[in-house]
Amino acid sequence: MITSGEYRERLSRMRPNIHIDGKQVGHDYERLAGATNIIAKTYDLIHDPEFKQYEDVLTATSHLTGQKINRFNHIHQSAADLLAKQKMTRITCHQVGGCIGRCMGIDSTNALSIATYLADQQYGTEYHQRFEKWLRMFQENDCTACCAQTDVKGNRPWRPHEQLDPDLYVRVVEKRDDGVIVRGAKVHNSYAPVVEWINVIPTRRLMPDEGDWAIAFTIPSDAEGVKQIVSAATYDTPEGYGMAGPWGGADSMTVFDDCFVPWENVFLCGETDIGSMLALMFALYHRHSYTGCKPAMTDVITGAAALMAEVNGIERAPHVNEKLAELICTSELCYGSGIAAAINSHRDASGTFVPDIMYCNVSRRHAGLNIYHEYDILADLAGGMPSTMPRPGDWVSEETRPFIEKYMARNPKVDVQDVIRAFAWVQVLSCSEWAGLMQYAGVHGGGSPRMEQIAIMGAYDMEKPKNIAKRLAGIETGKPYSFDRLGTTPKEL
Amino acid sequence: MITSGEYRERLSRMRPNIHIDGKQVGHDYERLAGATNIIAKTYDLIHDPEFKQYEDVLTATSHLTGQKINRFNHIHQSAADLLAKQKMTRITCHQVGGCIGRCMGIDSTNALSIATYLADQQYGTEYHQRFEKWLRMFQENDCTACCAQTDVKGNRPWRPHEQLDPDLYVRVVEKRDDGVIVRGAKVHNSYAPVVEWINVIPTRRLMPDEGDWAIAFTIPSDAEGVKQIVSAATYDTPEGYGMAGPWGGADSMTVFDDCFVPWENVFLCGETDIGSMLALMFALYHRHSYTGCKPAMTDVITGAAALMAEVNGIERAPHVNEKLAELICTSELCYGSGIAAAINSHRDASGTFVPDIMYCNVSRRHAGLNIYHEYDILADLAGGMPSTMPRPGDWVSEETRPFIEKYMARNPKVDVQDVIRAFAWVQVLSCSEWAGLMQYAGVHGGGSPRMEQIAIMGAYDMEKPKNIAKRLAGIETGKPYSFDRLGTTPKEL
Amino acid sequence: MITSGEYRERLSRMRPNIHIDGKQVGHDYERLAGATNIIAKTYDLIHDPEFKQYEDVLTATSHLTGQKINRFNHIHQSAADLLAKQKMTRITCHQVGGCIGRCMGIDSTNALSIATYLADQQYGTEYHQRFEKWLRMFQENDCTACCAQTDVKGNRPWRPHEQLDPDLYVRVVEKRDDGVIVRGAKVHNSYAPVVEWINVIPTRRLMPDEGDWAIAFTIPSDAEGVKQIVSAATYDTPEGYGMAGPWGGADSMTVFDDCFVPWENVFLCGETDIGSMLALMFALYHRHSYTGCKPAMTDVITGAAALMAEVNGIERAPHVNEKLAELICTSELCYGSGIAAAINSHRDASGTFVPDIMYCNVSRRHAGLNIYHEYDILADLAGGMPSTMPRPGDWVSEETRPFIEKYMARNPKVDVQDVIRAFAWVQVLSCSEWAGLMQYAGVHGGGSPRMEQIAIMGAYDMEKPKNIAKRLAGIETGKPYSFDRLGTTPKEL
Amino acid sequence: MITSGEYRERLSRMRPNIHIDGKQVGHDYERLAGATNIIAKTYDLIHDPEFKQYEDVLTATSHLTGQKINRFNHIHQSAADLLAKQKMTRITCHQVGGCIGRCMGIDSTNALSIATYLADQQYGTEYHQRFEKWLRMFQENDCTACCAQTDVKGNRPWRPHEQLDPDLYVRVVEKRDDGVIVRGAKVHNSYAPVVEWINVIPTRRLMPDEGDWAIAFTIPSDAEGVKQIVSAATYDTPEGYGMAGPWGGADSMTVFDDCFVPWENVFLCGETDIGSMLALMFALYHRHSYTGCKPAMTDVITGAAALMAEVNGIERAPHVNEKLAELICTSELCYGSGIAAAINSHRDASGTFVPDIMYCNVSRRHAGLNIYHEYDILADLAGGMPSTMPRPGDWVSEETRPFIEKYMARNPKVDVQDVIRAFAWVQVLSCSEWAGLMQYAGVHGGGSPRMEQIAIMGAYDMEKPKNIAKRLAGIETGKPYSFDRLGTTPKEL
Repeated sequence: MITSGEYRERLSRMRPNIHIDGKQVGHDYERLAGATNIIAKTYDLIHDPEFKQYEDVLTATSHLTGQKINRFNHIHQSAADLLAKQKMTRITCHQVGGCIGRCMGIDSTNALSIATYLADQQYGTEYHQRFEKWLRMFQENDCTACCAQTDVKGNRPWRPHEQLDPDLYVRVVEKRDDGVIVRGAKVHNSYAPVVEWINVIPTRRLMPDEGDWAIAFTIPSDAEGVKQIVSAATYDTPEGYGMAGPWGGADSMTVFDDCFVPWENVFLCGETDIGSMLALMFALYHRHSYTGCKPAMTDVITGAAALMAEVNGIERAPHVNEKLAELICTSELCYGSGIAAAINSHRDASGTFVPDIMYCNVSRRHAGLNIYHEYDILADLAGGMPSTMPRPGDWVSEETRPFIEKYMARNPKVDVQDVIRAFAWVQVLSCSEWAGLMQYAGVHGGGSPRMEQIAIMGAYDMEKPKNIAKRLAGIETGKPYSFDRLGTTPKEL
Repeated sequence: MITSGEYRERLSRMRPNIHIDGKQVGHDYERLAGATNIIAKTYDLIHDPEFKQYEDVLTATSHLTGQKINRFNHIHQSAADLLAKQKMTRITCHQVGGCIGRCMGIDSTNALSIATYLADQQYGTEYHQRFEKWLRMFQENDCTACCAQTDVKGNRPWRPHEQLDPDLYVRVVEKRDDGVIVRGAKVHNSYAPVVEWINVIPTRRLMPDEGDWAIAFTIPSDAEGVKQIVSAATYDTPEGYGMAGPWGGADSMTVFDDCFVPWENVFLCGETDIGSMLALMFALYHRHSYTGCKPAMTDVITGAAALMAEVNGIERAPHVNEKLAELICTSELCYGSGIAAAINSHRDASGTFVPDIMYCNVSRRHAGLNIYHEYDILADLAGGMPSTMPRPGDWVSEETRPFIEKYMARNPKVDVQDVIRAFAWVQVLSCSEWAGLMQYAGVHGGGSPRMEQIAIMGAYDMEKPKNIAKRLAGIETGKPYSFDRLGTTPKEL
Repeated sequence: MITSGEYRERLSRMRPNIHIDGKQVGHDYERLAGATNIIAKTYDLIHDPEFKQYEDVLTATSHLTGQKINRFNHIHQSAADLLAKQKMTRITCHQVGGCIGRCMGIDSTNALSIATYLADQQYGTEYHQRFEKWLRMFQENDCTACCAQTDVKGNRPWRPHEQLDPDLYVRVVEKRDDGVIVRGAKVHNSYAPVVEWINVIPTRRLMPDEGDWAIAFTIPSDAEGVKQIVSAATYDTPEGYGMAGPWGGADSMTVFDDCFVPWENVFLCGETDIGSMLALMFALYHRHSYTGCKPAMTDVITGAAALMAEVNGIERAPHVNEKLAELICTSELCYGSGIAAAINSHRDASGTFVPDIMYCNVSRRHAGLNIYHEYDILADLAGGMPSTMPRPGDWVSEETRPFIEKYMARNPKVDVQDVIRAFAWVQVLSCSEWAGLMQYAGVHGGGSPRMEQIAIMGAYDMEKPKNIAKRLAGIETGKPYSFDRLGTTPKEL
Repeated sequence: MITSGEYRERLSRMRPNIHIDGKQVGHDYERLAGATNIIAKTYDLIHDPEFKQYEDVLTATSHLTGQKINRFNHIHQSAADLLAKQKMTRITCHQVGGCIGRCMGIDSTNALSIATYLADQQYGTEYHQRFEKWLRMFQENDCTACCAQTDVKGNRPWRPHEQLDPDLYVRVVEKRDDGVIVRGAKVHNSYAPVVEWINVIPTRRLMPDEGDWAIAFTIPSDAEGVKQIVSAATYDTPEGYGMAGPWGGADSMTVFDDCFVPWENVFLCGETDIGSMLALMFALYHRHSYTGCKPAMTDVITGAAALMAEVNGIERAPHVNEKLAELICTSELCYGSGIAAAINSHRDASGTFVPDIMYCNVSRRHAGLNIYHEYDILADLAGGMPSTMPRPGDWVSEETRPFIEKYMARNPKVDVQDVIRAFAWVQVLSCSEWAGLMQYAGVHGGGSPRMEQIAIMGAYDMEKPKNIAKRLAGIETGKPYSFDRLGTTPKEL
């Protein structure tokens, strides 16, 4: 497995197809440093002695090569793999204080492993073989990938083929002997500028006559015809007040400007039913990832809130205790449901393990409904300081530093420089563009609570509880008792 | 295993130490029929062909005798046992539309199996041997037990020994050669009048000098010196509108009026540290039971709400869909966390499996916080009819029946008699003394959300997330990364 | 103004057209005593020296006769009248611990005063004159009225004329020279058995071709052809533990079995647009009444919760303080909005004052969304006792009384008999069929939160805030700034 | 009244005692432009023909001079003045999309008018005369003021005199013949760099021996010894996409570095009881201001959410309707309670009108509890675009503009340039440092919900509802019925 140095080296060699605020730049552009540092962390942890104890969590054995690989590149072969992935996600997110940036890769490859297999079974295609060839290369080279799923979608109530401009959902505009030409744009492609591969998949259910939009493929993130228009930022503080990282974000509107994709990288082309399933399968895996990252995010907010309470000297106040408990309950309910999703997973025909749809969705929905409230609690315990504290230049300027140090002193057990560090970090965490990004991601990333509601109601058999009700009410049902949502009982644990 | 007939027979032979509304009556008194029917159901299901598929769930193999026993009398020998107990609880609660009445028995015996073992290890006592002897008899005779934990407690802010009357917590007033004399009263003893044994345990942490209150024992529910002052009701409807059951509740204020307990039934006497642990251990098991029964209760409310929507013809309204989804999320988050509690269980030195404290508590707390809101949703979808509908006599009286049938007609797909049945049952479920009982039980049974908060904050190491925060903020911690709440990964699933 | 004795006397003289649980009985039937006591209280308060200070609140000067009348029979002549009505409602509800039962009368008469006037203006009818004639009699005789608005409605998604049975909304089946024949049934007619007059009005907007359903009239509650099928209960305790009252409820399914109404009592017949307006106008007045009664109900729950905290000895716990504050905020936000509704009222062409639609609706919606949560808080602070406490017979039986008195003792500052009284009352309040009735009424009475949402969105001009947004975003609007929801500024206060 | 030009001119002439990010700059520094524009708007509106209709709202007649003045400089002489102030606050906040920046001035002057009067009455001082002299000058010159209340407070659980450093609350370190020397720092001083005067008042209740901290005065914001360490930002977009404004914020940590204040500007010095009252009185007025500005902020979010729904083409979706209704209810409940606060105001001995403490506090608390949820709704309806949209440079760059315009197209009724404007503004509003500032301000500005809880519980007589409960429960109270929270009924409206 490679080092983060090698990873950074690769980025620097890529074609400069990044556009940021009016400039065309390379993949190693300064404003991308925050996002790059996050991905780099996933390479560093593999070699970090402190994380030796988590070796089985952070790595796995490839089912293709038998080699030890980064678990972010693994196809789940068991429920234990799903549990390990959830745990890895939580641990690694802790290190960067937020999104670890690699679940889009693992979730899209797992979804593709299933969809390509099913397509081949159903249509006699050879997508799965292509996919596994690519995956072998991907694992052997210890690459990174993101996923481009969300189309720009134009007018929401209209289907792809109903849009005034058919390109508002990514589509095939030409099929050639050597590959296809695709046109369109995907948005919210997190980390796309700082990974090597982009896995492109459909964004929604497709109707039988929407074959042009039933396209899935992988493509280098610097390929010809790919243009990334990027919103990115890195958050830093002056020397001596260094936050870990620094971290940041990078989201791409990825334009496919009549972009050529060779057949060997095409994993679906026209099979609308499989395309629909692929869209949902990625969402399912991604929501499973959220059972790891969202609790991690809540852990970070919990830690921040507890730190704020300590800094302010109010750590023993009953209402503080209550609010911290509320945060913990949010993270553990979501994480616990993720465990249940693994325990109730099933082995797909392709051999890949699929987590339980209900537990993934109730967990993701709960997290999505609570994210703003978590920031609310943090703000509540922090007091107003993170929003109005003097700017970094004043912490170190000779003119102002004495006053800052005198008047920022709070809990006498906390060094005033640590008070400043604590508030400065909580400012970045909760009172910054990045905070807004994390809030929006908390609502929409992986599908908003509304999407989970749809998934839940689609998967739930309402007749079951209704029959329970009817029997209790003395209404004839003619159906024996049965109830789906009971969970598997593994015989040997 | 015995039939419900044999169970009822046993009740009829018991000493009439039941007091209801000023009368002294037997254990087969009419107003106890609702509660009795519930316990009887747990005997019937074992022999019910429809439930043959759940045989492994409803029964277990005794670790003492190797015999097949009702799982409600089993000591958990594995995580799979805990999963099965959770599932059994949900299934059986569905049958009676609420509390199944036997978790107090299974939870107290499991807690006693651990506490008695630990006491013997620590103090060289012989409680565990006594307990196992009793348990063997209990299992072989397919008995039922309840648990008497909650003391009357007098003035809340005072400890047992600080009360004006020392009897406000059950205590030993005399130790004799052949046993002990106990005095005091326990309250909220659900099903005590309709079971054979009462397991009595401490209600709270005890201080070293509170040995008189560190008493645990089992006692026949009709023993000399035991006086049950009972609040009970059975809910029924006129012939032809029969609700399944009928069901009901029975809660006892159980008075120990200088009651003699022979040593063979005494399982703790003076060991305050073990008594404290026993109080918490029962609470833990009981909260684990709630991960089964509370989702079941929510299933019932979900079914009732869906039935109401159908009856009213509004089953396709978007807001109805949304509210049903909310109910489902509550039940599945709680059930999912219960699964996680089993997966993260550990084997105690006694051999008994103990569920994870965090997942049991976040699940119970979430359920407790949502119970009233669930009734709110049901009332919302039902409309006002369950609260004002004409009384049963008018459904069948010649004078009024034609009008009832004409004007209660709603969704033309639902027969008007079923409309009446549906509303009548939802009235019992949500607009009756029984509804109030279920609401109060939903808040307080197994410990209120506040108790779970205390358990959560006691079990949670706040330094862990705070260290994550400090590292992210650039504050030196000097401590390596580690995080407790990650869950076990079973190697083989 | 008459005494409650005269009121009771009148009830006893009425035709026995009441059906309760299969029996046909008179208006003075025992099970109606709870409801009757409530109405009687509104007569008693007028003569109660303790309430002399509220004379201006409880009485008004008739605009028809210049006589002093019970304010519940008054037509609002000013914003001050609306404020006084709100205050009267809160004060009087306090006396009976819930619904005072007379707002349906005042709200329907005020709505009729407007609708009849408008009809006459628009259609040259003489409804207003008839109405005022009846009203004069009504005021002079110090009568009581209820309102029958809610039709049984059959299948919810269908309009009146689409129902399989056209009688599922009350309608005129024949017009005669001397009056009309009406058929149908109204439900949820609270207090109908214990008042003299029933004001019948449409339940919803009507289409132009639904003239048969556009009918409004007043009718004696014991008139020929009127049949009341009633759900009623009175809550009482044994001697010496007497709750104030006792109080209770009585809700009628009022059947109009081809019932004759003379023209002089017909206030609308066929004018669908006015009928629609009348339905909404009653709802508006009724929601204004809720700005008084809902805060009163919350006051009662607040008092109960504070009493429970005192009884339990936890009145100083921080979480108790927090929960009581939450209750207070609910009542005062709702009451405050009601004040705003009066301040922003307008004088209708008829001279009657109409409260502001927005403030009435946001207040009612907020109350409706919080009602179950209020009971949740009460249950939380009470502990489980109200749901399992021994029955009244055991409080006084010689066998059990000593144990009850010994073991119910809690806060030593509270006499144990008062502990029993407190729990017994809180049981009735929160753990009884009556509690269910109050919960359902809290959600649906006066229209559920969903109905208020519709009213709010119908009355709100969304373009106003959208224009504010556009101007801030730099999007051309072409419209000057204006904003409706600002409230009137009375020049002289 | 002066123009905004004159206001800006005055700023440019001030002493450059502003420190921003390590630089010492003047009051007209570029990064202050956003805050300056907001204050300037309050001058412009007076002369804006579009606002002629609101003349009586935006201006008032000075009770000192009889001159027409900006209402922000007025001392409330009636309930109507309070209503007008609330309305003015809402209207003006709409113009700038957030805090209008002048309530700190009006609220502190009104509080001082009362405190100085009372001090003189009680201690024979001459503060009121000094204050009125200063106020006359202030009104005649149409000046602006902010308020410096919040001390840095050191360790929260300690009182001022218990801090390790006594300067952690602003205090008098020397009294001289001509004035006093003060030392300390105030934080969260919004708009301090862009106003002429700073009114300094105590932050909390003070004990009798804390006289040094009982200090109130006014001081020019550029006075010798005053050092403002400022956090400020202005939000702008490229030409052609100009947001109204641009607006921004500026918050000062205001250091009083042994700063001299002449006696004529000292309004309190040592009277701890009056100092305590002054702290609370300012909070009360400020919470009353929040009954205007918080609804305005919610109006802006409502407008933004409705705009987002329109842009996305989902404006007719039922869940959108529901969420918009929720926002409206928040704003109107808060505004309605503010109206009630004015209607129930009372005239202080000084002649100044004081709003009702309960209604101010329930309104502010409700707003504070909902602020994050409002942003949640906005994010929900907006979708992810505000958090990841390409940066302004890319909207106009030739390379990327065609793609932006092609792929940002949504609702065909909305021009794509307006789509960009809408998302860009919502990004600033909800996904930026400014959003964080508004969220924190929403929680803490004017005192967090916890502070309102304390005020509410302090002002509320819990015995009143408890007596209602006792009477209903049949417990003897010996006290006649009375209830405080009923509101005044103005006789003439």
